[in-house]
Amino acid sequence: MRRLSDGVEAALHCALVLASLPEGKVLSGKSLAEYHGVSESYLLKHLRALTAAELVEALPGPRGGYRLARAAAKITMLDIVEAIDGTEPAFMCREIRRRNPGNSKDPCVYKTDCFIKSRMLAAEKLWRDALRAQTLADLAADGEKLIDPHNKKAFAAFLGEQQR
Amino acid sequence: MRRLSDGVEAALHCALVLASLPEGKVLSGKSLAEYHGVSESYLLKHLRALTAAELVEALPGPRGGYRLARAAAKITMLDIVEAIDGTEPAFMCREIRRRNPGNSKDPCVYKTDCFIKSRMLAAEKLWRDALRAQTLADLAADGEKLIDPHNKKAFAAFLGEQQR
Repeated sequence: MRRLSDGVEAALHCALVLASLPEGKVLSGKSLAEYHGVSESYLLKHLRALTAAELVEALPGPRGGYRLARAAAKITMLDIVEAIDGTEPAFMCREIRRRNPGNSKDPCVYKTDCFIKSRMLAAEKLWRDALRAQTLADLAADGEKLIDPHNKKAFAAFLGEQQR
Repeated sequence: MRRLSDGVEAALHCALVLASLPEGKVLSGKSLAEYHGVSESYLLKHLRALTAAELVEALPGPRGGYRLARAAAKITMLDIVEAIDGTEPAFMCREIRRRNPGNSKDPCVYKTDCFIKSRMLAAEKLWRDALRAQTLADLAADGEKLIDPHNKKAFAAFLGEQQR
């Protein structure tokens, strides 16, 4: 499969961090960038995409920052992937089937999708459906179970210091 | 999802055409390019990739050309997609989880995959498994059912004239 935009990893991690914020709190882009070891300008581009997709809210001002726009259980992995990488299918059908000079020119002959396209898009749909079936709340539950105690403590310390 | 290489469409269509060749016959790159309305140089690049993946055989010489390297039922859609577009996962994990300066430096803490990576790759696996479960023989059966009679006749004429 063609590579997803590398912003997808950063966006998923950031959204998961925001899912841990107490109600009413935000984190700055600078804090999120430092925590993930990426440049602030790089991350702001992706935070803007998440904001444009209405998954994240950006509160302006010197005490502003980012928070989730809705509950973690209402934000799917697909929401985040598509906010960063777009919603276009991976397989692009350019109607090669019509190009043989001997083929029919009647558009009605092509009114159903090419069967190659149908099978390619059906496979993509399984990927998309799987990501739609998983939310930030599922990732947060993974984190509870799977993050090492030392790193959990480091995360709690980061969140305590940086939230505002 | 990020777009697949546009050669994937051409490669699938070409492989399906080759699946219709009688035993012992080949088609030239020029014939395949003309039938699909693409440039020969563009198509040759993808035919070379199919040959390198041992899905297609290239017979040299002035009467040479391309044919499938094995039965259509033994060539999956995934074989073709990966021959053109590679086998790398779409989601690249760059171990962002380790980057918080407060996080553990002990590599053992990270010996299982990041759970974000696990979920992303599990979703991709569904796409890949679906393409692996479908072969050129399935596409040929689609063609039997779904290609318009006029275009079927045009294809038979093309194959009759161009095979060698």
